[in-house]
Amino acid sequence: MNRQWVLASRPKGKPTEEEFELEEGEVPEPGPDEVLVRTVYLSVDPYMRGRMRDAESYAEPWEAGDVMRAGVVGEVVESNHPEFEAGDVAFGNLYWAEYATAKGSQLTHVDPELAPISTALGVLGMPGRTAYFGTLDVAEPEPGDTMVVSGAAGAVGSVVGQLGKLSGARVVGIAGSEEKIEWLTDELGFDAGIDYRDESVPEGLDEACPDGVDVYYDNVGGEITDAVFDRLNVRGRVAICGQISLYNAQQRPTGPRKLGRLIETRARVEGLLVGDFEGRYDEANERLARWVNEGTIEYEETITEGFENAPSAFIGLFEGENVGKQLVEVGEYER
Amino acid sequence: MNRQWVLASRPKGKPTEEEFELEEGEVPEPGPDEVLVRTVYLSVDPYMRGRMRDAESYAEPWEAGDVMRAGVVGEVVESNHPEFEAGDVAFGNLYWAEYATAKGSQLTHVDPELAPISTALGVLGMPGRTAYFGTLDVAEPEPGDTMVVSGAAGAVGSVVGQLGKLSGARVVGIAGSEEKIEWLTDELGFDAGIDYRDESVPEGLDEACPDGVDVYYDNVGGEITDAVFDRLNVRGRVAICGQISLYNAQQRPTGPRKLGRLIETRARVEGLLVGDFEGRYDEANERLARWVNEGTIEYEETITEGFENAPSAFIGLFEGENVGKQLVEVGEYER
Repeated sequence: MNRQWVLASRPKGKPTEEEFELEEGEVPEPGPDEVLVRTVYLSVDPYMRGRMRDAESYAEPWEAGDVMRAGVVGEVVESNHPEFEAGDVAFGNLYWAEYATAKGSQLTHVDPELAPISTALGVLGMPGRTAYFGTLDVAEPEPGDTMVVSGAAGAVGSVVGQLGKLSGARVVGIAGSEEKIEWLTDELGFDAGIDYRDESVPEGLDEACPDGVDVYYDNVGGEITDAVFDRLNVRGRVAICGQISLYNAQQRPTGPRKLGRLIETRARVEGLLVGDFEGRYDEANERLARWVNEGTIEYEETITEGFENAPSAFIGLFEGENVGKQLVEVGEYER
Repeated sequence: MNRQWVLASRPKGKPTEEEFELEEGEVPEPGPDEVLVRTVYLSVDPYMRGRMRDAESYAEPWEAGDVMRAGVVGEVVESNHPEFEAGDVAFGNLYWAEYATAKGSQLTHVDPELAPISTALGVLGMPGRTAYFGTLDVAEPEPGDTMVVSGAAGAVGSVVGQLGKLSGARVVGIAGSEEKIEWLTDELGFDAGIDYRDESVPEGLDEACPDGVDVYYDNVGGEITDAVFDRLNVRGRVAICGQISLYNAQQRPTGPRKLGRLIETRARVEGLLVGDFEGRYDEANERLARWVNEGTIEYEETITEGFENAPSAFIGLFEGENVGKQLVEVGEYER
């Protein structure tokens, strides 16, 4: 038997378990050139909330009745594709499902010798590459800069801050618990942290960034971002990577108009999607793997066990329940 | 006798004549290295509203009791500086005054043979250079792009649109009267115009930009800018030059949060101040003068006569009463 999670209805506001429906069916048979993959880990990511909306964005919205999609790392069970054989570990953009088939050309090999296979969904996967290109190609911290990262303890933000340190910047992380702030400053080498649930972000920024903010990497949007904009320095650079604080808004979010700050500071604000850098994924993969293996970049994973808990793991992202990459462990894997 | 306009008190909201006070005094005597200038034209500009606020921005605020400052073109009456002599025409950042003294090093010569001397405050002055660098270095329209300009019939916007055409873009101007739109499309070569006082800007943009907006040059901010952001194309470029619709706001202006649009489009938004390009003013002056003399760039001036009318000319900027550059003619000049 195969189980899969279906989007039963579009969430209104914050997603609830009501919007997901567990369906059972047959394990699919791989067709020509196809591979059958047994899910070991599936990834839940904030961007998925956008796909649940009835609005076209950079990608087509998901429809009610569709099986939820996700990045998956799994084990090949059966292969009709020459590049894969049973026992291989593969990554693919597949489904919230225990088993799925895909063309071999849509899968990539994951090397279990290189790092734990779960990292192919996190620090060595899409979030790590997002941090890599967003930091080094868009935000561009330089030695001497003060860099602020929001959502700093997340899968992307935690790597962004470490890349900021590697680039010579002073790095200040904004996150939502004392535990997260301690991880950022004590383990990852961030210079300071602001716990937005426990202290005023404007005051925290005044204290942590007495000379203003040169670079801001934004994963959250909303009032935290307003506070950073007010402290941008001349020629500041802002990378807009995510706006998680707004994704569940039921009405069009409003806030203070800040474009005038860009005249005062001549700052540059730029949005990014990792897919635009597809031609350079090998570069990012290679460097991130080296840094992780050297211990230059550390990472954390929050692993929710059990396929049945995928919706709650996803919903938890909007409560900031994860430290580092949020994964769902669906099946076992033994090398 | 010399008359000058003093900032009597900081405006609350839209400026009124109450906030300006006309003072009389002696015509000043030029000291060592100084030059006495008789004002012929003085410039009123939207940025002045910002200086009247009690808030430091990119420049120090003006204080109540200060003489209003302005770009001035005038005739040299008396000179203690070797580079100027009586009868010369000079530009300087001086005052709302009939006469003023300044160090010769703070003045520049204006060549009355090159163009009408008033243009040193408009198309061949700060607004023209703002348009030059803002368009060619920040907004960067390219052949095939659709470029939208707000405040399109103003001193800056009218030049921006023509530089967009020179750069090969399709140019759509947003302005506030039928007369202005006709000037843009019939005289200056804009491809389309939207009269924001007479029609819905979102609908006007849908009609004039069926393939979206690649480049946006913003002089106004607020709801017009919201509507353009909603129509930005992938890799769009936005230059924030002014936010005149917000300058008189008494409360912190709010509006829909649009940073998420930048993720969808990977657009870049950048603020600009012409002073950052000071090292390249000669380049801009030379090219703008050539284009004006060839007729490649056309310009308009709205000239208010009489020194006593400087406050009303300034206030009129916020009603959009000017077509092209708003000037005050203070004295006569004969070559």
